[in-house]
Amino acid sequence: MTRIEYELVARDGRARRGVLHTGHGEVSTPAFMPVGTRGTVKTLGSEDLEGLGARIALANTYHLYLRPGVDLVAEAGGLHRFMALDAALLTDSGGFQVMSLADLNRVDADGVTFRSHLDGSSHRFTPEGTTEVQARLGADIVMCLDECLPANSDRAAHLVAVRRTSAWARRCRDVYGAHFSTYDYPQALFGIVQGGIHAELRRRSVGEIVDLDFGGYAIGGLAVGEPKAATLETVEQMDALLPQESPRYLMGVGYPDDLVHCVARGVDLFDCVLPTRNARNGMAFTRQGRLVIRNAAYARASEPLDPHCDCWVCRRYSRAYVRYLLHAGEILGLRLVTYHNLHFYLGLMREMREAITAGCFALWQAKFFESYDAAAA
Amino acid sequence: MTRIEYELVARDGRARRGVLHTGHGEVSTPAFMPVGTRGTVKTLGSEDLEGLGARIALANTYHLYLRPGVDLVAEAGGLHRFMALDAALLTDSGGFQVMSLADLNRVDADGVTFRSHLDGSSHRFTPEGTTEVQARLGADIVMCLDECLPANSDRAAHLVAVRRTSAWARRCRDVYGAHFSTYDYPQALFGIVQGGIHAELRRRSVGEIVDLDFGGYAIGGLAVGEPKAATLETVEQMDALLPQESPRYLMGVGYPDDLVHCVARGVDLFDCVLPTRNARNGMAFTRQGRLVIRNAAYARASEPLDPHCDCWVCRRYSRAYVRYLLHAGEILGLRLVTYHNLHFYLGLMREMREAITAGCFALWQAKFFESYDAAAA
Repeated sequence: MTRIEYELVARDGRARRGVLHTGHGEVSTPAFMPVGTRGTVKTLGSEDLEGLGARIALANTYHLYLRPGVDLVAEAGGLHRFMALDAALLTDSGGFQVMSLADLNRVDADGVTFRSHLDGSSHRFTPEGTTEVQARLGADIVMCLDECLPANSDRAAHLVAVRRTSAWARRCRDVYGAHFSTYDYPQALFGIVQGGIHAELRRRSVGEIVDLDFGGYAIGGLAVGEPKAATLETVEQMDALLPQESPRYLMGVGYPDDLVHCVARGVDLFDCVLPTRNARNGMAFTRQGRLVIRNAAYARASEPLDPHCDCWVCRRYSRAYVRYLLHAGEILGLRLVTYHNLHFYLGLMREMREAITAGCFALWQAKFFESYDAAAA
Repeated sequence: MTRIEYELVARDGRARRGVLHTGHGEVSTPAFMPVGTRGTVKTLGSEDLEGLGARIALANTYHLYLRPGVDLVAEAGGLHRFMALDAALLTDSGGFQVMSLADLNRVDADGVTFRSHLDGSSHRFTPEGTTEVQARLGADIVMCLDECLPANSDRAAHLVAVRRTSAWARRCRDVYGAHFSTYDYPQALFGIVQGGIHAELRRRSVGEIVDLDFGGYAIGGLAVGEPKAATLETVEQMDALLPQESPRYLMGVGYPDDLVHCVARGVDLFDCVLPTRNARNGMAFTRQGRLVIRNAAYARASEPLDPHCDCWVCRRYSRAYVRYLLHAGEILGLRLVTYHNLHFYLGLMREMREAITAGCFALWQAKFFESYDAAAA
């Protein structure tokens, strides 16, 4: 294959069922991408991702750039070979982590200068630089460098961010174009739409970004603290403005109910640390809502994390054992909840895909919310 | 089955090939028991132990007694059900951990008083108490409470320990006898021989312990700092004095070469934290010796931990990736080396069993030491 293609297979209301054809296999969408921050989904190996049926995962450019470094990953033949993963990979631009993790970051019109949180060394990410870094890491999907503001930023700041994001997007695209190849498989560059929850800024941003003709489009700058109704309204607005023939990726979202709401509004790709990070904090996702497994109530509970789940964790282990492992600080506990939570997330996506194909997504959604209590636990 | 039986299948020199028939399956000996200190072999689940072909594992009474507590494990139906493990389990008496981990421990003729390292609470282990605790935990093999001295203890102290160990062994046996059942499967009590490296004290200890007629016998108090030649000499002495029809367990041993030397001297069961603890410190065991995977030399090494190994870790991952994971502090790194090391240990035991059955153990041993460099890395 010469380039990454998105194929729209079915629509049901605004919900979309599609296939992303990549050099590392077909990704059925809507899909959730487990977050493999530093080249591993914490506690899991690539064999576990295969077991989960994950056909795409995310890795963080900021972390991999600092350690083990791009040269080392490139020498290994790219991130897929380094991680021994035969599935698609998307890398972020690194900009978000620079803002949240790095010390002394400074944004100017040309890029971001920052100090490593590991050793204080000084680095600079420019649109051209992060594109090249991601290309050499070997991501199937490479993200443009953008400027993502906190939810409480004012309109003027969002306008500056939208302009800068568009200017940077053009510079990212000018490096290799929207479709290129660093190794022996195709890579695609995705543009990112910004604009906070300001409808007219979003309209401007999406127009400028789509004009640049990317391999796909991400909705950035949401789920950063704004009201949930505003998130959903913006996602709905994006569905009308983004090209139907391109994949849409909602960055950093979310809880299971968020995924359902946003699939209903035409999103194809998601990523979020919630199922994995919350797992390590002892929260299990179930069809009845969230389960805080560390609670004393589960000390003697012989049932599995989720009685309706058929993952190997739930087929084998009791809540009591998992709770004990977490309290004892045993690594196995983190691993078991992580695996279960991803199984839950990926199972949810699979159900939604099937419902869209069957043309009964609205019914499926209503039934989901009958049993799912977002506020549970 | 009504009781745990040991069947001696073949001898080759002093090396013994046998089968331990337990309520949780047959354990082919000589066997190495992975150490599941707190009810999990660190980083691994029971499904991993199954994958490794481990038919017996060890758990530590001291830790499980303090947390989650015996009542909770008993309510779950015993440790096998709690851990969801369908393999045999041996528990130690807890005495060794009391001496090494607990605060303010005080040994008297009747037992050991100690404070928990977790919360400072006061506890007491007596021969009767630890036997009951292990029985309720549900171990297939229950160990007598003994007194294990440091290698630098003098002969007089060893004499006291031998006397006390014999007196305690009798009291342990008097609780339920050498064969009993707390759940729906048989359990056996093993006696422990002490005496340091003093041949006449060992002779006395083994005589007194064997007179009590246990389900099996452990050689305790070795590999605690004495010269290796003295360890092997004592093991060899034990082979001549222990009944051939009972299983022999050498506690806390050891490195791969130690296992080979001691199988050659008639030992059937081993346990040691080395393959798992050293894994977490970045040491991989290979047929060529030890590999300190954190070394800079492996930063770009594309070969597996052990090029001669067929475990899934070695079939999939490079030294470079494993090294990176360990440096990044990623849990997956600990898990990968742990799995590989146990695969190496269990594979070594399987090879030895096959060599004994084939009657070529001496030849196998010579070939092993041709390639294995104990001092490597």
